[in-house]
Amino acid sequence: MLSNIDLRQTCDKHIFKDALPPLQKKLAALQQRVREAKLPVLIVFEGWGASGKGTSIARVVNPMDPRYFDVLTMGKVSDDMVKRPFLWGYWCRIPAKGQITIIDKSWHRVILPGEQMKWGHTETEANEFYRDVTHFERQLTDDGTLVIKLFLHISQDEQARRFHALEGDPSSAWRVKAHDWAQNKQYDMHLKQFEHLLLQTQTPQTPWHIIEADDRRYAAMKICGTIADAIEARLEQLEAKPKKSAPALIVEKSVPFYSQVLANVNADQDIDNAAYKEALESLQTRMTHLGHKMYLKRRPCVIAFEGWDASGKGGGIKRLVAELDPRSYAVVPIEAPTPHELGRHYLWRFMRRMPKDGHFTIFDRSWYGRVLIERVDELTPEHIWRRAYDEINEMEAHLTHHGTVLLKFWLHIDKDEQLKRFEARQNNPAKQHKLTEADWQNRRNWEKYEIATDEMFAKTHTENAPWVIVESNNKKFARIKILQTVTDALEAALR
Amino acid sequence: MLSNIDLRQTCDKHIFKDALPPLQKKLAALQQRVREAKLPVLIVFEGWGASGKGTSIARVVNPMDPRYFDVLTMGKVSDDMVKRPFLWGYWCRIPAKGQITIIDKSWHRVILPGEQMKWGHTETEANEFYRDVTHFERQLTDDGTLVIKLFLHISQDEQARRFHALEGDPSSAWRVKAHDWAQNKQYDMHLKQFEHLLLQTQTPQTPWHIIEADDRRYAAMKICGTIADAIEARLEQLEAKPKKSAPALIVEKSVPFYSQVLANVNADQDIDNAAYKEALESLQTRMTHLGHKMYLKRRPCVIAFEGWDASGKGGGIKRLVAELDPRSYAVVPIEAPTPHELGRHYLWRFMRRMPKDGHFTIFDRSWYGRVLIERVDELTPEHIWRRAYDEINEMEAHLTHHGTVLLKFWLHIDKDEQLKRFEARQNNPAKQHKLTEADWQNRRNWEKYEIATDEMFAKTHTENAPWVIVESNNKKFARIKILQTVTDALEAALR
Repeated sequence: MLSNIDLRQTCDKHIFKDALPPLQKKLAALQQRVREAKLPVLIVFEGWGASGKGTSIARVVNPMDPRYFDVLTMGKVSDDMVKRPFLWGYWCRIPAKGQITIIDKSWHRVILPGEQMKWGHTETEANEFYRDVTHFERQLTDDGTLVIKLFLHISQDEQARRFHALEGDPSSAWRVKAHDWAQNKQYDMHLKQFEHLLLQTQTPQTPWHIIEADDRRYAAMKICGTIADAIEARLEQLEAKPKKSAPALIVEKSVPFYSQVLANVNADQDIDNAAYKEALESLQTRMTHLGHKMYLKRRPCVIAFEGWDASGKGGGIKRLVAELDPRSYAVVPIEAPTPHELGRHYLWRFMRRMPKDGHFTIFDRSWYGRVLIERVDELTPEHIWRRAYDEINEMEAHLTHHGTVLLKFWLHIDKDEQLKRFEARQNNPAKQHKLTEADWQNRRNWEKYEIATDEMFAKTHTENAPWVIVESNNKKFARIKILQTVTDALEAALR
Repeated sequence: MLSNIDLRQTCDKHIFKDALPPLQKKLAALQQRVREAKLPVLIVFEGWGASGKGTSIARVVNPMDPRYFDVLTMGKVSDDMVKRPFLWGYWCRIPAKGQITIIDKSWHRVILPGEQMKWGHTETEANEFYRDVTHFERQLTDDGTLVIKLFLHISQDEQARRFHALEGDPSSAWRVKAHDWAQNKQYDMHLKQFEHLLLQTQTPQTPWHIIEADDRRYAAMKICGTIADAIEARLEQLEAKPKKSAPALIVEKSVPFYSQVLANVNADQDIDNAAYKEALESLQTRMTHLGHKMYLKRRPCVIAFEGWDASGKGGGIKRLVAELDPRSYAVVPIEAPTPHELGRHYLWRFMRRMPKDGHFTIFDRSWYGRVLIERVDELTPEHIWRRAYDEINEMEAHLTHHGTVLLKFWLHIDKDEQLKRFEARQNNPAKQHKLTEADWQNRRNWEKYEIATDEMFAKTHTENAPWVIVESNNKKFARIKILQTVTDALEAALR
């Protein structure tokens, strides 16, 4: 892919002088159209040291309105990023609708020697890496983001010439580091690594554009041209098809029948008061110890709570964290997305809250809203919430690949119990604020939720991220089961 | 302040057992009222090593709903924070309305030996530090945030006992570090430093509460009691006075007359085409070099653009950054604040965008909106926008104390020129989107803006953060003046 590229491409000075300005003008006009079309664009620059990434980015953005693009340098990985799944930092920075984000050095290089995964990864880790990368890029493109990946390729001789030139000028000598020369000396080895990386992360939706960059003018023309073509093609596509067109995805025609999990749960499970008190105390003490251990071993933990309204999520969470060091956890209540959040991929607002290594994040409702309330209330078209099953499994896989302990609870009460609790809230002035019209509305949709929940179990119950149904008619029983499940899972993970 | 505190306070076991639960219940109820009253609460824990900060925070939050508080550990300063003014990280994390944020280790300790300012600061730096801290706390309380500062005080013997106990248990031995024992050995010196720090940062609105913490039960009672009292007192205050009461501040009764700066500016300044081209090229080349130098010297730069509508801010910014490395700058367009932003102090959204050391941030409109559009359109009560002059000067001082090069431009055109430009936009389909009804509305308020702008100059033109008026009837002249001013300022700063 790289080794057979002819690097002798050049661009004549006069042609360049005439051809670049109109191309840049075109980029400026396209930027305006990108804003109007609310198209998110992510442009990735990868390549050899001294291949001209910085200069090339400058050429691309030079004609653009500087208020509406972002350039991010991701070469040096920050504290925050090192302590999280490797895609986390990129997730946090995905472009909003109508925004162009340019990244200098990308998530691809994480696996290269000397980069983030430097500890020497196993074959399995490498496979997980490539799978996670492919999923990430596909999720972005599925959501409408245009991802343009450029690799700037130069020859060994040209690279050496450039390092020498930089070193010859006192104002730029600091730019050449020992590892740059090391790359040049072992050019062939690095070539093989780059090539392997490009092949593994090449997909039809997000292909690599190889830029022959020995000649700077040729590279500039090809980079600007590639980006302009890609944006233009996408804009034409968007303008051609009516906005509310049928989805390209094949949608299952009828709601398939999933095993009726919920209907077979007996929500009535009991525990007597003395047993409750004893179990609560001993389990909370275990949680304290396990919390310390997780911190020492730098293992993060994510727990999602879903369940019927009034099923006791808040109370369950409270008992779960009661004896944890409050500096080690965050509880994130999920409400309807804000306009700011709606401007990005729906997983964005969850990813950005994921815990640092050694910490806990507990979600009170979660990314499963996509296939529950958004489905039942028809807030999201079917082909989009259907796509979410895969997206969710992929995100959860990415978290567990990183070593995250991931648990998902469904708090189950039956319809009678819910009515009792609603009425109790209504009659208690101190608790009236906890009951809203939306709760009654959801209750009317009970059967629809049952179907959605059963399908959710079937599609997203995985070995690394299992669903646990908590029989919750008795609040005390539920709390103990939650604590028991979490402590067991943490112990197993720490073994 | 610390040395004369009697640390022999204790709390009897039986009293404690009876008294703590109701106190915690009270805290839980207060948390609910805080949410309803939309009161932001910031609780700060400082103190000796092993004084029980973690345990105490746990006691305070234990009864609360974990979805509605945040606990932040700020002991270890992150990459991002080290490269910015020392208050930046705290600004980014101030509580929103109705939120309780608890900070374990605070901005106060930055100045202590071995902490962030470890390079050995001068007397001037220390004074700047204390002034910045005082301003920060006052700005938060002025904006309605309740700031509660607690210092956990233990004796030398008690500290040694606790270190030994921690070391005696294999599961907690890792918590005691070399610097902890160093603190214990040099207890008296540290006592003096703490005392000095507390005295310097003691203010009527944000006093330090010293907690005698040798006895854990006594400390728990006093901490919970102090917090509950402070919150309750503030809530009662809020409930007592009608929301739209007269401001406590004394407001100047009549609009004072400031020197008419704008009326005396001749916006017509010319430059011929050849001179423009030559100057543009040479200044942009200088910018490239200066950009590099700023990066090498790790100096950040902040530039704010204000001016009449259609005065050419966008074009000026574009020429300014044209030859800068796009990885080194960000341009931030300021629009009306979102609900999310309105939930916090109005400086929050600007502070969080401030550049890392070595980088540029350019604001297209800025924090001066508070005393311009918010004043003219009466979006903000007078006593609040009046307060902003000080707040702005203080924020800018904090930036320049850190070494930020700060410039503020007012792009000035006269009323006829603006009309010409509005009409040109109206008649050009490609530019119609740049002209809105709001622009015409602002134009009708020209005289009001003139008064507001003149007062703004008078109140916020400071030595470290001067206003530069750019005569902009001729766009080319304006661009050159901007570039000239910035390059001169950077050169002066780097000398």
